[in-house]
Amino acid sequence: MARWEPGAAGRLRKAAVELFAEQGMEETTVADIAARAGVTERTFFRHFADKREVLFSPQDDFAAVFIEPMRQAPAGATPLQVVRAGLQGSTSFFPTERRPGSRVRAGVIAAHPALRERELLKMDDLAERMAATLRDRGVGEPAATLAARSGTAVFSAAFGAWLADGETRELAELLDEGLAELSALR
Amino acid sequence: MARWEPGAAGRLRKAAVELFAEQGMEETTVADIAARAGVTERTFFRHFADKREVLFSPQDDFAAVFIEPMRQAPAGATPLQVVRAGLQGSTSFFPTERRPGSRVRAGVIAAHPALRERELLKMDDLAERMAATLRDRGVGEPAATLAARSGTAVFSAAFGAWLADGETRELAELLDEGLAELSALR
Repeated sequence: MARWEPGAAGRLRKAAVELFAEQGMEETTVADIAARAGVTERTFFRHFADKREVLFSPQDDFAAVFIEPMRQAPAGATPLQVVRAGLQGSTSFFPTERRPGSRVRAGVIAAHPALRERELLKMDDLAERMAATLRDRGVGEPAATLAARSGTAVFSAAFGAWLADGETRELAELLDEGLAELSALR
Repeated sequence: MARWEPGAAGRLRKAAVELFAEQGMEETTVADIAARAGVTERTFFRHFADKREVLFSPQDDFAAVFIEPMRQAPAGATPLQVVRAGLQGSTSFFPTERRPGSRVRAGVIAAHPALRERELLKMDDLAERMAATLRDRGVGEPAATLAARSGTAVFSAAFGAWLADGETRELAELLDEGLAELSALR
């Protein structure tokens, strides 16, 4: 299962987030990022297509932490139970030690419309993959799409809360709170 | 309440969708669109900032058809009942006569990633406005955000179904089917 990678890619991500927060994305070059991470520009481009992509995990890795647990959920699970398995799977991607860096990253994304668009596209792609996984399990439409999109809404709200100043609860707890609130809406 | 406008802006929208579908967005100029609509380029730019924007209604007009009925919902309404009022309000924006043009528009957007990003941003903005409207009514968080985002998920699924080849049911019926499916997920 994918996690925050400790090698060159992880150092490049950390360096980029720091530099974007310090001096803005436009003012930061790939050379700056590589220098702070202690690697060559060539190494940067072995891992990332451009300086924006460095803020985003490879989409297949990110989606897999949701999709694999959904595939492995028991056969009799309801659509929302399957979605819950996916959301809980995502917590492996966001351990406590990743929270400070994720807070800085969120601030950079909020300040740049082009990054916000990319983040929205990636969440939309995740919702589509989750809906497809539910359909593979025999869930019909529109139930599969609604369950998947309710799930990504819970994820986004819980992730935003996890990043809020002063919040100390773990993501897993915030996700379960969100799922309970979703059920209580009825 | 805003509707598909019949004047110059409406003719420009119709002309643009036709031309984008016939020859692609890149190959179509503002001059082409203005000529087909029977107006000057100057008139085009009085209504739209660029040729992409012609595919999107002004966001305040689009959002208002959801937000106003939410504000006017009875004081005792549950968050989902308020969201339902907003979704049903949106049907005034999509009368039957608008369906053929909306189908062509959806095909153009699907073919252009930059347009898909703009559409996602506009739906994300709508979800934020709906959540803010619920908070104004005293709904707490994360309930307000989850109700709003479940609502936009229902809208997107119903709107996609409304545009599907051969679908003859009205949007209002598809929205209520989606809301029922959402409740049945629990």
